[in-house]
Amino acid sequence: MTLWDKGGPVDAAIVRFCTGNDPELDAVLIPFDVAGSIAHVRMLGRLRLLTAREVARLRRELTAIRALHEAGRFSIRPEDEDVHTAIERRLTERLGDTGRRVHTGRSRNDQVLTALRLYGRETLLDVTEAALALGASAARFAARHARTPMPGYTHTRRAMPSSFGFWAGAFAEAIVDDVAGLRAAWDLLDQSPLGAAAGFGTLLPLDRAFTARLLGFSRVQRNAQHVQNSRGKIEAAVLAACTQPLATAHRMAVDLIWYSTPEFGFVRLPDRFCTGSSLMPNKRNPDVLELIRAACPAVCADEFRIKSLLAGLPSGYNRDLQLTKEPFLRGLRSSRDALAIAARVLDGVEVDAARARAACTPEIFATDAALEAARQGVPFRSAYRAAAATLASLAASDPAANIARKRHVGAPGNLDLRTTRAALGAQGRWVRSTRARIARAMRNL
Amino acid sequence: MTLWDKGGPVDAAIVRFCTGNDPELDAVLIPFDVAGSIAHVRMLGRLRLLTAREVARLRRELTAIRALHEAGRFSIRPEDEDVHTAIERRLTERLGDTGRRVHTGRSRNDQVLTALRLYGRETLLDVTEAALALGASAARFAARHARTPMPGYTHTRRAMPSSFGFWAGAFAEAIVDDVAGLRAAWDLLDQSPLGAAAGFGTLLPLDRAFTARLLGFSRVQRNAQHVQNSRGKIEAAVLAACTQPLATAHRMAVDLIWYSTPEFGFVRLPDRFCTGSSLMPNKRNPDVLELIRAACPAVCADEFRIKSLLAGLPSGYNRDLQLTKEPFLRGLRSSRDALAIAARVLDGVEVDAARARAACTPEIFATDAALEAARQGVPFRSAYRAAAATLASLAASDPAANIARKRHVGAPGNLDLRTTRAALGAQGRWVRSTRARIARAMRNL
Amino acid sequence: MTLWDKGGPVDAAIVRFCTGNDPELDAVLIPFDVAGSIAHVRMLGRLRLLTAREVARLRRELTAIRALHEAGRFSIRPEDEDVHTAIERRLTERLGDTGRRVHTGRSRNDQVLTALRLYGRETLLDVTEAALALGASAARFAARHARTPMPGYTHTRRAMPSSFGFWAGAFAEAIVDDVAGLRAAWDLLDQSPLGAAAGFGTLLPLDRAFTARLLGFSRVQRNAQHVQNSRGKIEAAVLAACTQPLATAHRMAVDLIWYSTPEFGFVRLPDRFCTGSSLMPNKRNPDVLELIRAACPAVCADEFRIKSLLAGLPSGYNRDLQLTKEPFLRGLRSSRDALAIAARVLDGVEVDAARARAACTPEIFATDAALEAARQGVPFRSAYRAAAATLASLAASDPAANIARKRHVGAPGNLDLRTTRAALGAQGRWVRSTRARIARAMRNL
Amino acid sequence: MTLWDKGGPVDAAIVRFCTGNDPELDAVLIPFDVAGSIAHVRMLGRLRLLTAREVARLRRELTAIRALHEAGRFSIRPEDEDVHTAIERRLTERLGDTGRRVHTGRSRNDQVLTALRLYGRETLLDVTEAALALGASAARFAARHARTPMPGYTHTRRAMPSSFGFWAGAFAEAIVDDVAGLRAAWDLLDQSPLGAAAGFGTLLPLDRAFTARLLGFSRVQRNAQHVQNSRGKIEAAVLAACTQPLATAHRMAVDLIWYSTPEFGFVRLPDRFCTGSSLMPNKRNPDVLELIRAACPAVCADEFRIKSLLAGLPSGYNRDLQLTKEPFLRGLRSSRDALAIAARVLDGVEVDAARARAACTPEIFATDAALEAARQGVPFRSAYRAAAATLASLAASDPAANIARKRHVGAPGNLDLRTTRAALGAQGRWVRSTRARIARAMRNL
Repeated sequence: MTLWDKGGPVDAAIVRFCTGNDPELDAVLIPFDVAGSIAHVRMLGRLRLLTAREVARLRRELTAIRALHEAGRFSIRPEDEDVHTAIERRLTERLGDTGRRVHTGRSRNDQVLTALRLYGRETLLDVTEAALALGASAARFAARHARTPMPGYTHTRRAMPSSFGFWAGAFAEAIVDDVAGLRAAWDLLDQSPLGAAAGFGTLLPLDRAFTARLLGFSRVQRNAQHVQNSRGKIEAAVLAACTQPLATAHRMAVDLIWYSTPEFGFVRLPDRFCTGSSLMPNKRNPDVLELIRAACPAVCADEFRIKSLLAGLPSGYNRDLQLTKEPFLRGLRSSRDALAIAARVLDGVEVDAARARAACTPEIFATDAALEAARQGVPFRSAYRAAAATLASLAASDPAANIARKRHVGAPGNLDLRTTRAALGAQGRWVRSTRARIARAMRNL
Repeated sequence: MTLWDKGGPVDAAIVRFCTGNDPELDAVLIPFDVAGSIAHVRMLGRLRLLTAREVARLRRELTAIRALHEAGRFSIRPEDEDVHTAIERRLTERLGDTGRRVHTGRSRNDQVLTALRLYGRETLLDVTEAALALGASAARFAARHARTPMPGYTHTRRAMPSSFGFWAGAFAEAIVDDVAGLRAAWDLLDQSPLGAAAGFGTLLPLDRAFTARLLGFSRVQRNAQHVQNSRGKIEAAVLAACTQPLATAHRMAVDLIWYSTPEFGFVRLPDRFCTGSSLMPNKRNPDVLELIRAACPAVCADEFRIKSLLAGLPSGYNRDLQLTKEPFLRGLRSSRDALAIAARVLDGVEVDAARARAACTPEIFATDAALEAARQGVPFRSAYRAAAATLASLAASDPAANIARKRHVGAPGNLDLRTTRAALGAQGRWVRSTRARIARAMRNL
Repeated sequence: MTLWDKGGPVDAAIVRFCTGNDPELDAVLIPFDVAGSIAHVRMLGRLRLLTAREVARLRRELTAIRALHEAGRFSIRPEDEDVHTAIERRLTERLGDTGRRVHTGRSRNDQVLTALRLYGRETLLDVTEAALALGASAARFAARHARTPMPGYTHTRRAMPSSFGFWAGAFAEAIVDDVAGLRAAWDLLDQSPLGAAAGFGTLLPLDRAFTARLLGFSRVQRNAQHVQNSRGKIEAAVLAACTQPLATAHRMAVDLIWYSTPEFGFVRLPDRFCTGSSLMPNKRNPDVLELIRAACPAVCADEFRIKSLLAGLPSGYNRDLQLTKEPFLRGLRSSRDALAIAARVLDGVEVDAARARAACTPEIFATDAALEAARQGVPFRSAYRAAAATLASLAASDPAANIARKRHVGAPGNLDLRTTRAALGAQGRWVRSTRARIARAMRNL
Repeated sequence: MTLWDKGGPVDAAIVRFCTGNDPELDAVLIPFDVAGSIAHVRMLGRLRLLTAREVARLRRELTAIRALHEAGRFSIRPEDEDVHTAIERRLTERLGDTGRRVHTGRSRNDQVLTALRLYGRETLLDVTEAALALGASAARFAARHARTPMPGYTHTRRAMPSSFGFWAGAFAEAIVDDVAGLRAAWDLLDQSPLGAAAGFGTLLPLDRAFTARLLGFSRVQRNAQHVQNSRGKIEAAVLAACTQPLATAHRMAVDLIWYSTPEFGFVRLPDRFCTGSSLMPNKRNPDVLELIRAACPAVCADEFRIKSLLAGLPSGYNRDLQLTKEPFLRGLRSSRDALAIAARVLDGVEVDAARARAACTPEIFATDAALEAARQGVPFRSAYRAAAATLASLAASDPAANIARKRHVGAPGNLDLRTTRAALGAQGRWVRSTRARIARAMRNL
C-alpha cells in the first residue's frame, strides 16, 4: 500500500514501471533515512507535536531498523515502492498512531533529498580519501623513481628526456587540484535540505536549524523551492567533480597499460593486478588498469545522464528526477572504488629501469642541443633548423645527468614533492576533521 | 610555412585537415598570446638571452600586433596554421633574428595553454558577473513580488500556495551556490602554465615565478608534465562549473515559457524579448527564453565534447587536444551571453497577479488542512486520508494570508533576501577586486 | 575458481573490483548462454571433438540449467565471476571431463558476444513491437479525434488551427520512420559471432555456418577480429536506434503532461496512470508520463556511455568493454517498457473537446486570412503585414471547418491514416515472421 | 529588417543573441535554399498563384543568387538573420511585388527543413563515399599483407598469431555494416518536408508531390506536424549513423598510432601524414591519425548536442532547434573529411614485416598447443592448465604457417576479401546511381 493510496484502482504493470529498481537501490539509503527520520522526530518533539515518550519510542524503533538492516534482515518489498514507505509502514505496524505521526510536516521528497545528501556527504569523503591515497601513492612513486630516466612522450612519440619520478609527480600535483574541486562539491552537500517539505514549506514552525545541527550540517539550504530545484543539479556537480581525479587515474592507467606491454616494457604489473583468459593459457591481462581507465568515461556518462534528465523540467519536483538516484549512487561508488584501487596498483608497479634507459635514444636530446645553441647566441629558430638537419649525427647523452640539470620550477630535475605533499597533507587533515565532526553528530543523534 | 617546417613535401588536403578552423578560432586569442609573449620575452631578457634593446623592440612589435588586431587589421592566414605561427612570422619579418629568438625555451603548446588560460580567466569572470547579475535580478524580482501569490507546482500540477517572490528567491539562492562553483573553477585557471615548454622543462633557467607574476597569476602550475596533462581537463572543469548557473537559468526559462502562455497567463514578456514568424502574422514567440533554455544543454555538450576527446589519451600533448579549443571558447561565450540576457529578461517580466491569484484553487490548501489537524492531535497519516476524502468540499482560502503564516527558515513567508543578497554582494566584491588585480598586471606588462 | 586460474595469489578487493555487478547482470543471459553453448557443443560433435553421447549429455545438462534458472534455482555466485564460468563449473561438476571439453575452441568473449547478440536480437524485437503498439495507438487516437479541433502550437504559443487527430497522426507516422531504424539496427544483430574465439580463429575447423543456422542467424559475422571489434559498437548502434521511437514517445509525453494541466485542460489522464503525494492529499501526478519522458534521455545516456567506453581502445577485446553490458541491457529494457506503457497511456487519454475548442482563439486564423488575400492577388508579404496590423479585429472562425478545408498532402484535413497504418502493418508482419523464424530455430536447438 | 518585422522596438543585444552565428553557418545552405525556392515557385506557378512570367523571373533571379554565391559575392548580412531572409530581401529588391509573393504558403522553418534536408542528403552521400573509400583501402591493404604475420592483441597484450591482412580485413568488413547504417539514415533524408508550412498545412492546395519530384526526393514526408517534429531528430539519427564508420576509423587510427611508435615499430607513416614540433627538432608526429581518432568522439558529441537540445520540447517548432544546425553541419563535414583522409592514410602506411614477425614470440602459440591437445582427446580445460604450466618451454613456431592453417570462416587463413569487396561494390553502385538521380533532378530544376 503506497503512502499516497486513496483507494483507487491499481495496475500492476504501471506500478512496476513507476517503481523501477528503487527497492534495490534504496537499500544503501536505509541508515541515512533512519538518521533523517530521527532528526525530524526529535524536532517534532521540540515543537510538542510528539510527546517525549513518542520520540523515544520512534528513536528506538528507527535504531532497530538500522540494526536489522545491518544484520541483513530489513528488506524493502516491491509493494513498498521505496525505503521511505517501508520504514513508515514498519513504524506504523509497530507503534500504531505514533507511526502515523512521523510524516507530520515532511514529504517523501524531503526524505529522499536528506537521505541522498547524507549518503553523498559520506561517500564523497570516501572518494576524496581515495583520491588523496592515489596522490600519496603517486608522490611515493615519484620519490622512489626521482632519478630513473625514461623518454618523455608527446603524440605517443619520444620527445625529450624525462623520468618516472617526473611522470608520477604530475599525477600527484593533479590530485591536489582535483581534491580542491571535490571539496567545493562537498560544500554543496553540506547544507541541510530537511524541512523543505514539498518545496513550499509548512504552517508548522519547523526548526530547520535544529535538524541541520543534529545531522551535522554546516548550514540550512534555505528557500524550500530552491531545495527541491537542487535535486539532480547538486548530484551532477558532485559527479562532475569526481570525474576530475578519475581523469587523472584514467591517464595514469592509459600510460601504464602501454608501458607494461612487452613492446614498451618500462614497467611490470604484479600478478595480483592481472587476470587471464579462459582460452589462451599465455594471457596475463591488465584488467585492473583497464577497469580504472573505464571508470572515467563511465562516471562522465553518469554525470551526463543526470544532466540530461533535468533538461526541460519546470520548477518543483518532477518524477524524472527519480532516475537521477541510480547514476548518483553508482557514480560515487565507481569513483571511490577506482581511485582506491588505482592507489594500490601504483604502489605495486615495478619499473624496468634498464629498458626505459635504453629507450632514451639520441634524438630526444635534440631540443636541448638547439637550446644550448640558442643560449650561445644563435637565434632559436635557426638553431632548431640546424638541429633538425643534423639529427642523425646527434650523440647519445646521459638522460639522468640531463634531467638533473633541468632545475627551474616544474622541471624534471626539481620535483618539489615537498610542496605537493604538504598540499595533500592539508587536504587529508580536512577530510579527517570533517569525518570526526560528522561522526560526532551521528553518535549524538 | 609552418614553425616545424623542415623542408619536406606538403599535401594541401592534409594541411587543411590538420589546420581545421584554428585560424578563425584563434582570432580571439591574439591579445592573450601577445600578453604571454611579452611576459616570456621579458623573462628571456632577465636571463640575458635577449638584450634590453631586443626586449624593447619585441614588446613594441607585440603591442603593435594587438593594436592592429583591435583595429581589425591583423589576420591569421590559413597557411599560418594558428595565431602563434602568425605572430612569430610577423616578428621575424619585422625584426629578423630578434624575431627568431622569441621562441627560445617555449613550445607552441606552452603558448596555447597560456593564451587559453588568460582568455578563460577573463571570460570566466565575465560569466561569473553575468551569473551574479541574474542572481541580483532574481532577488529584485523576489522583493518586488514577495507577497504576490501563485500556485506552487510539483509534477507540473498545482501543489500548495506559493508566491512569485518565493519562486524567484529560489533562483537567487541557487546562484549563490553556482557562483561558489565558478570560483572553484576559476582557481584552476589562476595558475601559470608558462614555462612548461613541451612538458619536460628546459635546460634554460626559466623564471616561471616571474612570468606568473607579470601575467597576474596567483601561482605557478609546477610539474611541466602536469601542465600539459591539464590541457582539456581544466577546460572541462570550467565548463562543468558554467553549466550550474545555466541550469538555474534553464529552469527559470522553462517556467517563464510556460507561465507566459495564454493558458497559464501568469506573466507577460516585453515585446523586445519576443520575435515573430515569417508566415504567421499573429505570432509573438519567446525566442529569447528558448535560447536561454537551450544554452544549458549546449554547454553541457561542449563540456562532454572535451571530456570525450580526452578519453584514451596517454600523458603529454596529443593532437586530439587541439579540438578542445573550440568547445571551450564557445561554451564560455554561450554561458556569458545566456546569463547576461537572462538577467535582463527577468527584469522585464511583468506579473499578472490576478490570473495567478485565480489559479490558487481550493485544493492547494488541502495539505495545510491536514497539517492543521495533525497539529491538533490527529495522526498525520489519518489526517491526510481524511483530507483526501473531503477534497471537494475544501473552502477557498486567501493565499497571501496563507503564505504569510509560513515563517520557518526557507518558507514562503520568510524569503530572507537579506542573507541571499549579502552572499551575492560578497561574491561581487571578489569579482571586482580580482578584475582590478588582473587589470593592474596587464597594464604593467 | 576462475576459468583462467593458474594457481597465483588472489586479492579479494581486486577480484570484487573486476567482477563488478556481472553476477547480477548475467542472470538474464543464462538462457542465451545455454543456447549458444548447445550450438557450440553440437558443432563440436559434428567435428567429432565430442562423441554423440557427450553431446547428448551436455545438451541435457544445459537444458537443465535453463530449467533451473527459470525456476529461480540457478544462481551465479560472486566467485564465479560471470554466467559463463558458473555454467562451465556446473557442467564440470556434473559431467567431469565432458564438462572440461565444452570450452574447446571458444573463448569467453565469444560466449559473451553470442549471449548478448541473442539477448539483443530478442529484446530489440520486443522494442520494435512496443514501438509499433505505440504507432497503432497513435493511429487509433488520430482516427478517434480526426475532427476534434485544438490550437496548433509553435514556440509553445498558439499558432494555427489543428486537431487532436493531426497531433497524434504525427506520432504514428514518426513511428514508421523509427521502426525502419530499429530494423536496420536489428540486421546488425542478425549475424552470428560464434566461433570467433579470442578474435583470431582457431586451428580447429569450426563450422560457423552450422552454429549460425542452429541459432537462427541469417548470416555469419566473418572476420574474427571484426567480430571482437564490434563489441560495444553494435550495442551503441542498437541503442541509438532505440532513442528514435523514445524521442517520439518523449515528445508525446511532454505534450500530454502540459495538455493535462488544469491550465491547458485539453486532456484528462485516467487515475491508473497517476500517482499521489505522501504529504499533499490533493495531488494527482502524471508520474507515468514523466517516466516515459525520462526514458529518452536515460537511454541516450546509455548509448553515450557505451560510446565513451570505446574511446581510445585498440583492436581486440579490452576489459573496458565489460562495462558496456549493463547500459546495453538496461537501455533495451527501458526502451521496451517505456514504449509499451506509452501505447497504453495514449489509449487511455480522454479529450476535453470543449476546452480545446475554446482555446482556438481568433488570432490563430490570421495566417489563413493573409493567405486568402494572397490567393486573391495581394503579394504575400504585404498581406502578412496587413493581417498583423488588423489582428485585433479578426473574427472568430470555426476551427473544424477550417481544418476540413486543408486537404493537401499532410494537411490536417487529410490525415491519410490508411497509408500510415499500412506501413505499420507491414512492419508488424516482419516482426511476427522474424519471431517465428527464431522460435523455430530455438525449438530445434 | 526581419521577415516578421511589424514595427516594434529592437534591442541590438537581443537581436545579436538570437541571430547567433546563423549568418556564417547559412552560407553553405545558399544553393540548397535556392533549389527549394525554385521548386516552391514552380509549384506556385502550377497553382496559378504566380504567373508564368513571374516564375521565370524568380527562377532567373534565384539562379543568379546561386551564381553570385559561387563567385563569393553573395553575403548574408547580420541584420538579415539568416539565408532565407537575405534571399527574400534580394528578390524583393530586384523584383518588387513578385519577390513579396515568393513566401506564399511556406514558412521559414519549411525552408530551413528543406535546405538542411537537401544539404544532408548530398553530404551524407559524401560521407558514404568516403566510408567506402576507407573500406576499399582496408581491403587493398588486407590483400597486400594477407600473409604478413603480426601478433594479434587482446587487452593490448600479445594473444595469438594474426596478420596485417586479417587486421585490415576486419575494418573492411566493418565498413560494410557501417554503410548499411548510413543508407538507413539516408532514407530518412530522402523525403520531402517542403509544404509543411508552419507545421499545420495551408488553405492553398500545395502540390507537395510535385515539389518532392522536382527536388529528387523519393517520397513526401506527409503529416506537417510530423515534419516539424522531425527537426533535429533526423539530424541526430544521421550523425549517429556517421559515428559508426568513424568508430571503425577511430580504432584503426588508435592501432596505427601505437603500431607506428618506435617501441612497436610495426608500421611507418609517410612524412606527408606527419607534422613536427615548434620546439623539438626531432619530432615527427602522427597528427593526421590523431585527428582521425578525434573525429569519432567529436561527432558523437555533435550527435548528443542535438539530442540534448530536443529534451523537454513540446510538439511544433521551438527556437532551441535552431542550435541543432551547427552540430549537424559540422558533424557531417567532420565525418566526411576524417573518413576520406583515413582512406588515404591507410594507403600510405608501410609495414615493417621483420619487426612484426619478431614480435610473434613463442607464447602466442600456447592456445594452439592446448587446442591441439584437445583435438587429440585431452579435455580442453586440462590441456589449458597444462599449457599454462609449460609456457616457458614452448617452442617458437612459424606464424605464417600457423595462420595459413586456420581456414574456417573468419579465420586469419581465410580472409575471404571477395565477399567483402562484393558488398562494398554493391554499396558503391548505390551511391553512384543515387547521385545520378539527384543530379538529374537538380539539372531539371
